[in-house]
Amino acid sequence: MEKVGIGVDVGGTGIKLGLFQPDGTILKKWEFPTDTSENGTHVLPDIAESIRKTMEETFQGKVELIGVGIGVPGPVQPTGYVEVGVNLHWREMYPARELSDLLGGVRVEVGNDANVAALGEAWRGGGEGAANAVLLTLGTGVGGGVIMNGEIVTGKHGLAGEVGHIHVRDGETEPCNCGAVGCLEQIASATGIVREARRRLAQEKTRDSGLRALGDKLTAKDVCDLGRAGDGLADEVMETVAKYLGETISMLCMTIDPEIFIIGGGVSRAGAYLLDKIKVYYDRYTKISQNRGRVVLAELGNDAGIYGAVKLVLG
Amino acid sequence: MEKVGIGVDVGGTGIKLGLFQPDGTILKKWEFPTDTSENGTHVLPDIAESIRKTMEETFQGKVELIGVGIGVPGPVQPTGYVEVGVNLHWREMYPARELSDLLGGVRVEVGNDANVAALGEAWRGGGEGAANAVLLTLGTGVGGGVIMNGEIVTGKHGLAGEVGHIHVRDGETEPCNCGAVGCLEQIASATGIVREARRRLAQEKTRDSGLRALGDKLTAKDVCDLGRAGDGLADEVMETVAKYLGETISMLCMTIDPEIFIIGGGVSRAGAYLLDKIKVYYDRYTKISQNRGRVVLAELGNDAGIYGAVKLVLG
Repeated sequence: MEKVGIGVDVGGTGIKLGLFQPDGTILKKWEFPTDTSENGTHVLPDIAESIRKTMEETFQGKVELIGVGIGVPGPVQPTGYVEVGVNLHWREMYPARELSDLLGGVRVEVGNDANVAALGEAWRGGGEGAANAVLLTLGTGVGGGVIMNGEIVTGKHGLAGEVGHIHVRDGETEPCNCGAVGCLEQIASATGIVREARRRLAQEKTRDSGLRALGDKLTAKDVCDLGRAGDGLADEVMETVAKYLGETISMLCMTIDPEIFIIGGGVSRAGAYLLDKIKVYYDRYTKISQNRGRVVLAELGNDAGIYGAVKLVLG
Repeated sequence: MEKVGIGVDVGGTGIKLGLFQPDGTILKKWEFPTDTSENGTHVLPDIAESIRKTMEETFQGKVELIGVGIGVPGPVQPTGYVEVGVNLHWREMYPARELSDLLGGVRVEVGNDANVAALGEAWRGGGEGAANAVLLTLGTGVGGGVIMNGEIVTGKHGLAGEVGHIHVRDGETEPCNCGAVGCLEQIASATGIVREARRRLAQEKTRDSGLRALGDKLTAKDVCDLGRAGDGLADEVMETVAKYLGETISMLCMTIDPEIFIIGGGVSRAGAYLLDKIKVYYDRYTKISQNRGRVVLAELGNDAGIYGAVKLVLG
């Protein structure tokens, strides 16, 4: 009987699932909205029910489910313990154990969603199978994940891969969501890019920029698009973003020196325009050797989570 | 027959050796000067000869040598290849393979000396057996090593653990030895501390400080000692050193989140005075969680290398 695995990416608004062959070929992909009512107690039963239904209706029991991997928002301890899953209203859970019970004992593994996405991108995305990779996800915040020897590095306390909260900027005055000041996330997230652009517009009141007319509607995409199109102020904002990303990548290179650095998240849609800028600063801060990890763009988009999740049980 | 391992720490001026029981108990320690003549071709034969002699004369063949670990200056590729060992005048060597041949096929493993010291400190020093640890060695330069799952992380290109060349200071104008600008080593090494102190003295010409009278003889130890004794300018220099060390440790925490950070090297003799300052900044830049790795002082001093080296073959 054909063996399959399922990857689940649990988000605050939607849950994505993918059914895979052991080599990573995807056979079916589906999703449904997250029911976060009653302290998120419906989330895991809903996932179990959806998996059971799909196994019966689509595959009529003709495949063998060897395991389910699940990526969840919030820190996951090396033991699988989730103290708080804010968006799901979870508290003090062992989601893998609970989902396994709901599925009659099927093997279930859990990981932090950003870390799991890193595993997905390293395995079947921009990382092209790299056993050692780091993903930096530039979205509303900046997340990421560290993959070593083909596995997620969670760290002793579940803090590994929290690259968005690396301190990069002295002199920053506003606090980051984490409570510290000068985090990468404050500059290189979509939110950070908008903040940076607004600051510049306020500081340089007489300078012409296409960003000015956008007013409150200004988005990170506008900054990327206008920067690429030659708008001086927008381009300088993206230069600043690239500087701190290049610096962070350089630091990661001299800490764990992976094969590949993968830039993902909505901001990475800026593509080669951003990537080329990042490489300039990566080079500037990594003079110690030219022989070092490459920087590439993520390739799986929103599917990185289901790929990485299923990899947790495909080994 | 009792099994033993030997750890060798190869330096530019001296070679240290230690003979250990498998549990890390040291039975004998000795050293001899490094002969770097003729492109360092005597180094490995001298080590082999010294090992053979000790095994015969001291132990009269009553112990079984299960392996030799060797720490060497310069980057070591994951394959054991050493492209350049500057202080030894080595070029394009496989030191482990060569030493093994010289010792009649005994198992030999090689690592970069700073990485090997990290393994020693994690195993039997300040790390107290931690499987996941980072050592920052504050000596003439700043070196270090990353230990994960009880093993040295070399990285894909041998750059892992090069924590001295992490970019920490924007606005620095002088270049580091590595060619980049603003590296941790430029501030937190013994050389960096002296440089920082001299800069301050030049900038604040009218300010009183015990450092001023020392003139060209000023050392990092003077800065530590005077700072601890309440000299304002010296204390501010050490505050700057601690800030960038705290920042680096915070960054390592949010990258790989080890159990423990170990501060070693000559500068670490500043002890609690330095450690307490570092912790303030580590805390400031790591607001994301209070549950995180501890920062401690190294304990093995110059013996870290032989402990770590032998651990390479004791598994």
